[in-house]
Amino acid sequence: MLSKRLIKYFKSLQLKKYRHQERKFIVEGAKGVSEVLASDLAIDFLLTTKVYAELLPTDQLSKVKEVIEVTESELKAVGTFQTNSAALAVVSMEEKHDFLLPNDRLVLALDDVRDPGNLGTIIRIADWYGIDTIICSLESADFYNPKVINASMGSFTRIKVYYKDLKEVFTATELPVYGALLSGENIYKSQLTNIGILLMGNESQGINSDLEQYISHSLHIPRRGGAESLNVAIATAVILDNFFR
Amino acid sequence: MLSKRLIKYFKSLQLKKYRHQERKFIVEGAKGVSEVLASDLAIDFLLTTKVYAELLPTDQLSKVKEVIEVTESELKAVGTFQTNSAALAVVSMEEKHDFLLPNDRLVLALDDVRDPGNLGTIIRIADWYGIDTIICSLESADFYNPKVINASMGSFTRIKVYYKDLKEVFTATELPVYGALLSGENIYKSQLTNIGILLMGNESQGINSDLEQYISHSLHIPRRGGAESLNVAIATAVILDNFFR
Repeated sequence: MLSKRLIKYFKSLQLKKYRHQERKFIVEGAKGVSEVLASDLAIDFLLTTKVYAELLPTDQLSKVKEVIEVTESELKAVGTFQTNSAALAVVSMEEKHDFLLPNDRLVLALDDVRDPGNLGTIIRIADWYGIDTIICSLESADFYNPKVINASMGSFTRIKVYYKDLKEVFTATELPVYGALLSGENIYKSQLTNIGILLMGNESQGINSDLEQYISHSLHIPRRGGAESLNVAIATAVILDNFFR
Repeated sequence: MLSKRLIKYFKSLQLKKYRHQERKFIVEGAKGVSEVLASDLAIDFLLTTKVYAELLPTDQLSKVKEVIEVTESELKAVGTFQTNSAALAVVSMEEKHDFLLPNDRLVLALDDVRDPGNLGTIIRIADWYGIDTIICSLESADFYNPKVINASMGSFTRIKVYYKDLKEVFTATELPVYGALLSGENIYKSQLTNIGILLMGNESQGINSDLEQYISHSLHIPRRGGAESLNVAIATAVILDNFFR
């Protein structure tokens, strides 16, 4: 059984303020927990149901500081899932290392993607296409938000996400900056190199007009039908597919 | 002010049973309501805030049987949105006409896509790429679910969605059936024609093994990174982009 003190502590990590104060975040459900156990991330607590505990590889449990057996209703009480029959982990954020823009591959930059589900989905897409670095503007959704972690389906363990003033990043580089703009060039006919930055904009406003000046190659996905736009995660996937096909 | 009877009626349309009994569904928010007003769909009620009412083109209002001015909190009470400062419409479902599989274009078939958000997003993607027909298996999410309508961002007005036994549909046609399977051919190297059916599978189970025999061309999106899979809506967008690029 969980003490009141621990329940309060686990629940506090649903809030950005406490996550960043404690430098801890929560990972919920079988998929996320199995990925975090297989990663290099340090785990303080693993709350697990009896059934799920029996499925866990014991060598992976050695890195967990404290394993606590709980019921499904305890998991529900401390986490954000409507149902969770598996586990919840409290994980240490990685030490921040200095940001260095990679100059030998494509990286993704997100200008104010505010919806945690969208950010998590974009992390999963980036991971599918072999992108390992995402630079988010300072106003973007928090990487450690449980909805981001969940939507990333375990890909949060493989992608480095930095929060930066994008103007400063773009000013300091001579790499090509590809930007998704409605006025952009037909992506099917564009010369795409796999080195540089791909900039995607906010869900409703698109790319901030202050940033447009830094775009060296503007791109758009041709539309055949009646929809006004594509969701930012969908557009990111389609554009990355065009880069790497 | 809304009567208790009307509030109860509007709220009942959040449930599939009552929607299909009454042959009515609800559309919420500025984007959806503006698209439904511009469409051929018949509207029984339009609940609108004073501010939003002033923005509406009067010629579009003539087809609404009853316009009721409401407050934002009344909109919230009868609908599913957390906030809605615009409007909510009660719309008549279109008369069912007999299903005839188009043989001159690409149509989409969905095998048990259960999540309403995914179905709505797929409707929006289909609309972007000029697909006008989607055939859903009988277990798929309900087209008239408010979450489907909302996620489609107005595209529900342009796409015909049918619910059919997919086996029967596939048995009765000689059109090519493209299926997204992990074991499929590299989509970048596949011959894709724009006539036939593209079959996408359930979120966690993929395409039902009973249906695999009907696939004449199996396809997969090559993976470069670590993610195990792509979300079904994301995969649909990437595959359609490869068909139409």
